[in-house]
Amino acid sequence: MFCLTVRDHIMIAHSFRGEVFGPAQRLHGATFVVDLELQRPDLDENGIVADIGLVSELLKAVLAPLNYRNLDELPEFAGRNTTTEVLAREIADRARVQILHGALGDEAKGALQGIKVTLRESHLAWASYETRLQAG
Amino acid sequence: MFCLTVRDHIMIAHSFRGEVFGPAQRLHGATFVVDLELQRPDLDENGIVADIGLVSELLKAVLAPLNYRNLDELPEFAGRNTTTEVLAREIADRARVQILHGALGDEAKGALQGIKVTLRESHLAWASYETRLQAG
Amino acid sequence: MFCLTVRDHIMIAHSFRGEVFGPAQRLHGATFVVDLELQRPDLDENGIVADIGLVSELLKAVLAPLNYRNLDELPEFAGRNTTTEVLAREIADRARVQILHGALGDEAKGALQGIKVTLRESHLAWASYETRLQAG
Amino acid sequence: MFCLTVRDHIMIAHSFRGEVFGPAQRLHGATFVVDLELQRPDLDENGIVADIGLVSELLKAVLAPLNYRNLDELPEFAGRNTTTEVLAREIADRARVQILHGALGDEAKGALQGIKVTLRESHLAWASYETRLQAG
Amino acid sequence: MFCLTVRDHIMIAHSFRGEVFGPAQRLHGATFVVDLELQRPDLDENGIVADIGLVSELLKAVLAPLNYRNLDELPEFAGRNTTTEVLAREIADRARVQILHGALGDEAKGALQGIKVTLRESHLAWASYETRLQAG
Amino acid sequence: MFCLTVRDHIMIAHSFRGEVFGPAQRLHGATFVVDLELQRPDLDENGIVADIGLVSELLKAVLAPLNYRNLDELPEFAGRNTTTEVLAREIADRARVQILHGALGDEAKGALQGIKVTLRESHLAWASYETRLQAG
Repeated sequence: MFCLTVRDHIMIAHSFRGEVFGPAQRLHGATFVVDLELQRPDLDENGIVADIGLVSELLKAVLAPLNYRNLDELPEFAGRNTTTEVLAREIADRARVQILHGALGDEAKGALQGIKVTLRESHLAWASYETRLQAG
Repeated sequence: MFCLTVRDHIMIAHSFRGEVFGPAQRLHGATFVVDLELQRPDLDENGIVADIGLVSELLKAVLAPLNYRNLDELPEFAGRNTTTEVLAREIADRARVQILHGALGDEAKGALQGIKVTLRESHLAWASYETRLQAG
Repeated sequence: MFCLTVRDHIMIAHSFRGEVFGPAQRLHGATFVVDLELQRPDLDENGIVADIGLVSELLKAVLAPLNYRNLDELPEFAGRNTTTEVLAREIADRARVQILHGALGDEAKGALQGIKVTLRESHLAWASYETRLQAG
Repeated sequence: MFCLTVRDHIMIAHSFRGEVFGPAQRLHGATFVVDLELQRPDLDENGIVADIGLVSELLKAVLAPLNYRNLDELPEFAGRNTTTEVLAREIADRARVQILHGALGDEAKGALQGIKVTLRESHLAWASYETRLQAG
Repeated sequence: MFCLTVRDHIMIAHSFRGEVFGPAQRLHGATFVVDLELQRPDLDENGIVADIGLVSELLKAVLAPLNYRNLDELPEFAGRNTTTEVLAREIADRARVQILHGALGDEAKGALQGIKVTLRESHLAWASYETRLQAG
Repeated sequence: MFCLTVRDHIMIAHSFRGEVFGPAQRLHGATFVVDLELQRPDLDENGIVADIGLVSELLKAVLAPLNYRNLDELPEFAGRNTTTEVLAREIADRARVQILHGALGDEAKGALQGIKVTLRESHLAWASYETRLQAG
């Protein structure tokens, strides 16, 4: 299996609901360093998993609506905690949809099998979500 | 699959038995930067893999009996080399027992599926041990 | 010259005033990985710049009132942008005051000459502030 | 499962064929930080995945013919793009052959199950190739 | 003193002349992770060393003519070894000229005192060049 | 001013005397990642601070007598705490002596002005010692 990973980041504000979060129930924020990993069993005719330029643009496009935002104000997260884990899944899901809409080209759309998104919230903690690219 | 990882470290002395270890047969030491990763297929109602505060405390508690110690003097390692690999398994096993005793709460105890511990002994070498959380 | 550095971090929300900040004028947030460096020309009788345990506690104590906060709501920053640079100076100043009040002991208070605080806001950008410990 | 990883690096020149590569079609170069990971389900009698000294030597030996080279001039890559992905597989395959020829000893040869090679081309992008050690 | 640093990178081919360079006399390449640090004694009215967006653009603009190039073919380096040290100075000098031409605005142009450029060629080696921004 | 830095590491055991050290009074150990920085105002005719191959060998040679050792047993440290700070100075002093004996060649011996050694004991703490290369 081959993997290709690119890194970008977002800087957001948010707060959590639930006693388990302690002081993180207050409005605070985070820099999330975001790694997007794509997996496929074979390389394309150019010898790549996907066009790294397109993958970087895809990640940037997926992160743009979240960057420099207070996530508490975004309707898509209403009633949900935007934990590192939830954001990892959300970013993976959004990237997955873009790939299935052809953002990385038709060849990659058919050949990519898995996607993994890791969010590093500090030098001491990070979370990831991994799923198959294709449904079913 | 979701993963949550937290980082801590220990500073220990030890020596190895076996010609394969060369100069490491002498009493020496290491800083092990320890990453504890927990895996589960779905998030809890708060949107997390586990309470990150509890996970950090769990890791610290598991590492405490090893930290600032000469591992050659600890009875539990008598007759065994405390290699990076052996320590990764030992720390994972101890964390696993604590989780099964409820250290992260009942919900996490039932939902967590896997555990992985990585020990970085330098900027050039590291080892990990990964296992399922539940027996059988 | 000797330097000793310890690392900690804070997770905060804030916004900036001024067109220069572009989208960072919106409420957003950051994880700041904070390095506190202390400088002195000679070591104490124990062979250290300062008690690393006390230095770590000092840094944690200085960061505590900022951690998990919306800095826009803290009175001490009213009318000021809490940029990475401003926070580096603020943290250095607060640590400096604590040291001059004896937080690291009398010997260190007299012997330490300089202090430097670096805040890393992402893997791509950081800022620092360095000053002498003693006035005049 | 246990994993042991060692790190080394190479500094190479190369160019790519294909419009997808944009400016990377020109002769340029890269530092590849190379991580070689070995996987096995149980440890040997010394408590290790493999002799870390031998693994480091193996990696260095595998990288030597590539290091400080213009990969465009190496016959084994004629007609192929030496992308990060292709090099990850090439290095993994060469290491695999050496292991199967006994470079890490007979015990490791029989016990090792998987191999993964990761090449970091910058702080923002990396690729890996993972395969089983034994054929069939 | 305040410092602000931003990071970018280039991927280049080159070769060195001189027996001291051993195998690096052959055409090879490098990824240089480039840190541009700017120094000034006081902050501007916004509380910053300089507009971090402009600084990032400045660094990217300075690196662009070098990126994805064989430095042996660039006329400005004819007869010179493009060592890590030489490139650090070259990049610092080019950034300095742009700043003195107003790339970061007039206020920053007058207030900035020093500039430092660090190039990391691997996880094991790096070089830097530091100079005053103003002549005389 | 130009700086060139190379990185290596040692793995040692030791203990400290003095209540300030708390649990570190027990025999324990550390991996010290060691950075050796050399400073000079101008480059040599090859465009370098010093032959990076020789600098790496110098650092390795200086570290060899300490590596895989219990520092409590080394006569040169009798009666002294081998703190991170003390070791940084010791390594810098030993490297300085070697340079003054010509380990990096006569040209470098005359031109190098400063030396700085940084020891990272974990991802959370490090210490350094910086001095002029020439006496007086």
